[in-house]
Amino acid sequence: MNGNRFGRLFQVTTYGESHGPGMGCTVSGVPAGVELDEADIQRDLDRRKPGQSMITTSRGEPDEVSIQSGLQDGYTTGTPIGMTIQNKDARSGKYEPFVTAPRPSHGDFTYSAKFGTRNWGGGGRSSARETVNWVAAGAVAKQVLDQSEHDVQVKAHVNQIGDIEAPDVSFEQMLEHSEENEVRCGDPETAAEMRDLIDEYQEAGDSIGGSVEFEAQGVPRGLGAPRFDSFPARLGQAMLSVPASTGVEYGLGREAREVTGTERNEDWEFPEGEDDPDPTPVGNDHGGLQGGITTGQPIYGELTLHAPTSIPKTQRTADWETGEEKEIQVVGRHDPVLPPRAVPVVEAMLYLTILDFMLLGGRINPDRLDDNPGEYDTPYHPSSPRND
Amino acid sequence: MNGNRFGRLFQVTTYGESHGPGMGCTVSGVPAGVELDEADIQRDLDRRKPGQSMITTSRGEPDEVSIQSGLQDGYTTGTPIGMTIQNKDARSGKYEPFVTAPRPSHGDFTYSAKFGTRNWGGGGRSSARETVNWVAAGAVAKQVLDQSEHDVQVKAHVNQIGDIEAPDVSFEQMLEHSEENEVRCGDPETAAEMRDLIDEYQEAGDSIGGSVEFEAQGVPRGLGAPRFDSFPARLGQAMLSVPASTGVEYGLGREAREVTGTERNEDWEFPEGEDDPDPTPVGNDHGGLQGGITTGQPIYGELTLHAPTSIPKTQRTADWETGEEKEIQVVGRHDPVLPPRAVPVVEAMLYLTILDFMLLGGRINPDRLDDNPGEYDTPYHPSSPRND
Amino acid sequence: MNGNRFGRLFQVTTYGESHGPGMGCTVSGVPAGVELDEADIQRDLDRRKPGQSMITTSRGEPDEVSIQSGLQDGYTTGTPIGMTIQNKDARSGKYEPFVTAPRPSHGDFTYSAKFGTRNWGGGGRSSARETVNWVAAGAVAKQVLDQSEHDVQVKAHVNQIGDIEAPDVSFEQMLEHSEENEVRCGDPETAAEMRDLIDEYQEAGDSIGGSVEFEAQGVPRGLGAPRFDSFPARLGQAMLSVPASTGVEYGLGREAREVTGTERNEDWEFPEGEDDPDPTPVGNDHGGLQGGITTGQPIYGELTLHAPTSIPKTQRTADWETGEEKEIQVVGRHDPVLPPRAVPVVEAMLYLTILDFMLLGGRINPDRLDDNPGEYDTPYHPSSPRND
Amino acid sequence: MNGNRFGRLFQVTTYGESHGPGMGCTVSGVPAGVELDEADIQRDLDRRKPGQSMITTSRGEPDEVSIQSGLQDGYTTGTPIGMTIQNKDARSGKYEPFVTAPRPSHGDFTYSAKFGTRNWGGGGRSSARETVNWVAAGAVAKQVLDQSEHDVQVKAHVNQIGDIEAPDVSFEQMLEHSEENEVRCGDPETAAEMRDLIDEYQEAGDSIGGSVEFEAQGVPRGLGAPRFDSFPARLGQAMLSVPASTGVEYGLGREAREVTGTERNEDWEFPEGEDDPDPTPVGNDHGGLQGGITTGQPIYGELTLHAPTSIPKTQRTADWETGEEKEIQVVGRHDPVLPPRAVPVVEAMLYLTILDFMLLGGRINPDRLDDNPGEYDTPYHPSSPRND
Repeated sequence: MNGNRFGRLFQVTTYGESHGPGMGCTVSGVPAGVELDEADIQRDLDRRKPGQSMITTSRGEPDEVSIQSGLQDGYTTGTPIGMTIQNKDARSGKYEPFVTAPRPSHGDFTYSAKFGTRNWGGGGRSSARETVNWVAAGAVAKQVLDQSEHDVQVKAHVNQIGDIEAPDVSFEQMLEHSEENEVRCGDPETAAEMRDLIDEYQEAGDSIGGSVEFEAQGVPRGLGAPRFDSFPARLGQAMLSVPASTGVEYGLGREAREVTGTERNEDWEFPEGEDDPDPTPVGNDHGGLQGGITTGQPIYGELTLHAPTSIPKTQRTADWETGEEKEIQVVGRHDPVLPPRAVPVVEAMLYLTILDFMLLGGRINPDRLDDNPGEYDTPYHPSSPRND
Repeated sequence: MNGNRFGRLFQVTTYGESHGPGMGCTVSGVPAGVELDEADIQRDLDRRKPGQSMITTSRGEPDEVSIQSGLQDGYTTGTPIGMTIQNKDARSGKYEPFVTAPRPSHGDFTYSAKFGTRNWGGGGRSSARETVNWVAAGAVAKQVLDQSEHDVQVKAHVNQIGDIEAPDVSFEQMLEHSEENEVRCGDPETAAEMRDLIDEYQEAGDSIGGSVEFEAQGVPRGLGAPRFDSFPARLGQAMLSVPASTGVEYGLGREAREVTGTERNEDWEFPEGEDDPDPTPVGNDHGGLQGGITTGQPIYGELTLHAPTSIPKTQRTADWETGEEKEIQVVGRHDPVLPPRAVPVVEAMLYLTILDFMLLGGRINPDRLDDNPGEYDTPYHPSSPRND
Repeated sequence: MNGNRFGRLFQVTTYGESHGPGMGCTVSGVPAGVELDEADIQRDLDRRKPGQSMITTSRGEPDEVSIQSGLQDGYTTGTPIGMTIQNKDARSGKYEPFVTAPRPSHGDFTYSAKFGTRNWGGGGRSSARETVNWVAAGAVAKQVLDQSEHDVQVKAHVNQIGDIEAPDVSFEQMLEHSEENEVRCGDPETAAEMRDLIDEYQEAGDSIGGSVEFEAQGVPRGLGAPRFDSFPARLGQAMLSVPASTGVEYGLGREAREVTGTERNEDWEFPEGEDDPDPTPVGNDHGGLQGGITTGQPIYGELTLHAPTSIPKTQRTADWETGEEKEIQVVGRHDPVLPPRAVPVVEAMLYLTILDFMLLGGRINPDRLDDNPGEYDTPYHPSSPRND
Repeated sequence: MNGNRFGRLFQVTTYGESHGPGMGCTVSGVPAGVELDEADIQRDLDRRKPGQSMITTSRGEPDEVSIQSGLQDGYTTGTPIGMTIQNKDARSGKYEPFVTAPRPSHGDFTYSAKFGTRNWGGGGRSSARETVNWVAAGAVAKQVLDQSEHDVQVKAHVNQIGDIEAPDVSFEQMLEHSEENEVRCGDPETAAEMRDLIDEYQEAGDSIGGSVEFEAQGVPRGLGAPRFDSFPARLGQAMLSVPASTGVEYGLGREAREVTGTERNEDWEFPEGEDDPDPTPVGNDHGGLQGGITTGQPIYGELTLHAPTSIPKTQRTADWETGEEKEIQVVGRHDPVLPPRAVPVVEAMLYLTILDFMLLGGRINPDRLDDNPGEYDTPYHPSSPRND
């Protein structure tokens, strides 16, 4: 409703502006008994952090997270987890020229149009800096999933920068290679080419678009509440929240326009060598989603991100206070390309979406009532807080 | 949450299965004093109706809507509008072979996996028939918008079927031509080609994918609540709820991957010839959306729909009751292509999304409090129920 | 938000005005595999129905429910259940004098003030007739609970009319006696006295207040999400939605003002004769609620309802159209007292609240994730749709 | 859903345990352009603070609030306001005996039963300390209301402690006297008696119940969305969230049981001496609420709070770890009575409820659409950020 909350049962609520005192998020609906410490979260924050490479802004933010609540002896208690991250290296002065003269294609104008005011330093609330909260919350979701009996695995990588497209990359390749290079591409050779292209644009004072490919394996079937809370609908909301996104595709995506029913339809078969096997589709052009509900097959798709709008070139704007058109230059520390730092953000939104749906439950039948009594058969004990 | 509700302030709640007694929706948050009758709604239902042409299923549904509540003397009262639409031509028998033997790439398996049961006639709740409710609700939203001081206009058309792509079509062309031909393409020549291609696939017992292009003009700027309720995020949820959708794009969409910041950025200028002009971007590659908020420029995008999964060819499935793999044939009355009938559905989701955001408000400042007192300065009178 | 929805996971959405074409509700979040037919619902509707005795309005409404969706072979499918109830005996003419001249202490003025119009026949949307939807939805919740492994039992009765208070009545007495008499009091002797008092007021053309006492047994412990979704907070919302309610109390209720901590505190003990007993409080002055969460002890409380505002006496009003003050007489068919017909309504709100909390779950820990996979190990079969 | 959020458009999300690192809340939906500083909030926090008098716990918490976001130059920007309050004086050691041996009538057992664990220091999340967040959020709501054109005033006072009841006290008396004495009673004489009674119980190592009376003036008519989001239903949810509450009443409250329709009904009249007067009820036994919607008359009611459960007397409990029943003593720093410190909490919940409803709007008609365009006619300027 107000834009700062994501999720139904696993809920993330955020605050914070790029140049305000601090960022923060509150995560509620976290199951009790999950081991969690700040280092788990920090690991992912470090992947999103500015200044981590030559192709990211040089803003110096340690992005250190502090957990304020929701833990007992290192385990979650089922109550909300508050996290804060202080802003340390905001330099607002450079943004003064834009207070009433909006930067081209940024959110300056729309925020001021909406609210009649805005926090103008560093883009304020519209800054991609806000995704630090998403990554913190996603890291909590990841911990919950990792400690469940399910083997949910999520990974994203950069599959296109400008006109350089990565070849098809397996999930294993993504896992193995995408964090080895600064571009976060699962194919090391393509990564090198992408890196060269980025350097080229950066040197030319320009920026370039690209895309992130994502995949989730081990997601249980039965997730999604068609129609308006179908898995693809809610994942779409998550993905299109990512700053600079201009489109999301699942499975065959845009390509499906030219594919026939005969080609795309997947017969059902019983896999060989399994006891009591389940009907399984012979392929996965459906991207793990049928009728808006997960099939248990891998969920995959792509998110397109346009070129960063902060470029050092001289541009023109119109100052609504003075009524004058004028030239401006957006100096500052900016990313020449967005997908590399968007990778942990996309992964976070996948974790949040998947866990939220898992808490809502796959199968909803009367047995569910029996599964959730207020039992405390494994009562709390300080020395062994897990229910085991 | 449960999948049958869309919207925050303008809320639509639906029920109904393809072969159940009836479909229905409840629309709440409808402003009072809007003139509304069943004919307004029927007009749009007729555009979505089966059997309207040779390229749609021949199921004979009149799709007659009945308004059950929320009106006084033909004007809305601000209370919920209940609408019912009876199912008249359900023939479930043909679906019996699929009760425990899922049709390839349908929702049969996922619904049964989720719920342990399903209404199996005609696809039950997973059927596109359910969108009859969306169109009814969208027609109410359209009436509200048409009677406001805003001039919001929405139109969609079919811009691709298989490998046939329509040329760029203006909003005016869409309005003028897209309802003239059965394919609902805004370019009559392309429509004819598309029609031929569809016939070809239909004759071959196959189906084909395609896409719907949509545009909304006159949407006030300032709508959208970044980050997770940004305009694109919520519109994405709406669009990716459409059955068979595999991707949604805004503005440059997927093309943005290869576009530089310099190319895409749009300078601000003051339009000539206006008194007290506002800063206006020099183009609309941004698709009416910046920072997740509407700019006041036209909002446009595309929705990809895969080929219909109901095809008369013999296919293979796996019966979970008998444990046998077997051949099945999906006989019945089906569409060879989805975009033509999806056009009114896409328009409905746009109307619902836009009105919902408009009720949430653009600018939210203390003046808003002053705008909403419980005044009745223009009290109700039976002979003149509008507040004018 | 818009007032026509109750519940988070078990959601009820209603529409309908007293004198409109029909009433209706959509119930979503219903677990799959529950046996349900219209007769189950009708039984409760008949208890709320007008014209059932001399102390209820003589309006002749059969209140016949029709289920439109959500069933397969008599079992729920997990998809929304749409229900409709036609209005048959609306006589709006009598309400014409009040269109612009509000009846004392009704919702006429506030509805018109809020919306600038209203459906004025029979009180429109503000009529207690709307609770027919609540009772229908509550009956669905009751079926779900009855078919779960839990033994949740809910009962309410009338414990005060005017200055006649019933003595303390056990849950068993409520069950046994409260449906035997027209007043719905669990103590037959008091019921007779109450009945005489009601007759007295009815003959005098007056009405009188009273209260409903409610109790729920077998509610699992661990329900409630403090702070703002605590069990008492959400039950309070439910109860204070009941028309004419002026207060709700739990446990000791208002009496707790004069009780000391020593008196009210309840020690914990291990009940004798149980294997592996749980700590159990020695009493139930806490009304089954501690820290906003259910303890597993019976939940009980009282709801006060003011006297019906429709009385045949001449009263004065002010016509906002003519600017004149004038006398009016509210002729019509009205209840002299509300609690007897409120009993099934209060029970329905308890069922809805309890089931909603049970679906949200008591214990929320990682095991929950394991309980809700999308399994279909007991697949649907037409001849035995239950998962057993 | 998860219990840590209140409000629909004006949303408060909280985290924090009594003995955790810190408390915090995020307030979203705050209109832009409202002057706000920490001192505004601190003033109310100081009224709720422990250690402020001899009849409150001596825990030494400065309760200093720090605003982390949502401001520009001292004015709100319309984006979420994050606030943090560090815990400084937690002494958890005293709570170790209760880890597996629940204190009588506290939330120890229910929290552990629900989650299988809990933060046990100082009551953890179940502690009334959590209301520090509510008061901080309520202070923001108060600032918004104070700077609107409406003259909404809210006050509460203590009207009963044990068997000492305050006489009827006017709103002006509440405003004038209730903050003058430690009991926060609007009648100074009664306050003295109450104080003596409290001392008596405190000396006896006991505690006692009581109640808070509240009133809101200047609330616009037309607020409330019957049925389930009626004003009394949502205010009921708010009030029954207050720790230790056992009942809430509006208007005549429980007394309405014995009042006839003739006595309670209020005729409508046109007040003398007004130009173009509105129909106005001749009294306010309805407590400002008719048909679930505000009438514009003062809203008033009472909230009952049971005696504090922390008393120094020896009590008995059952240790679920050892299986033994045993004696415990709840040493620590506790309040002998709750209403005095609940006064600012009750006021905060009123502010939050009223503002939330005001943002949702009284009258909802097509004009509303025209009131909320994304205009920025009074653009932001650092030196005059208000839109005036």
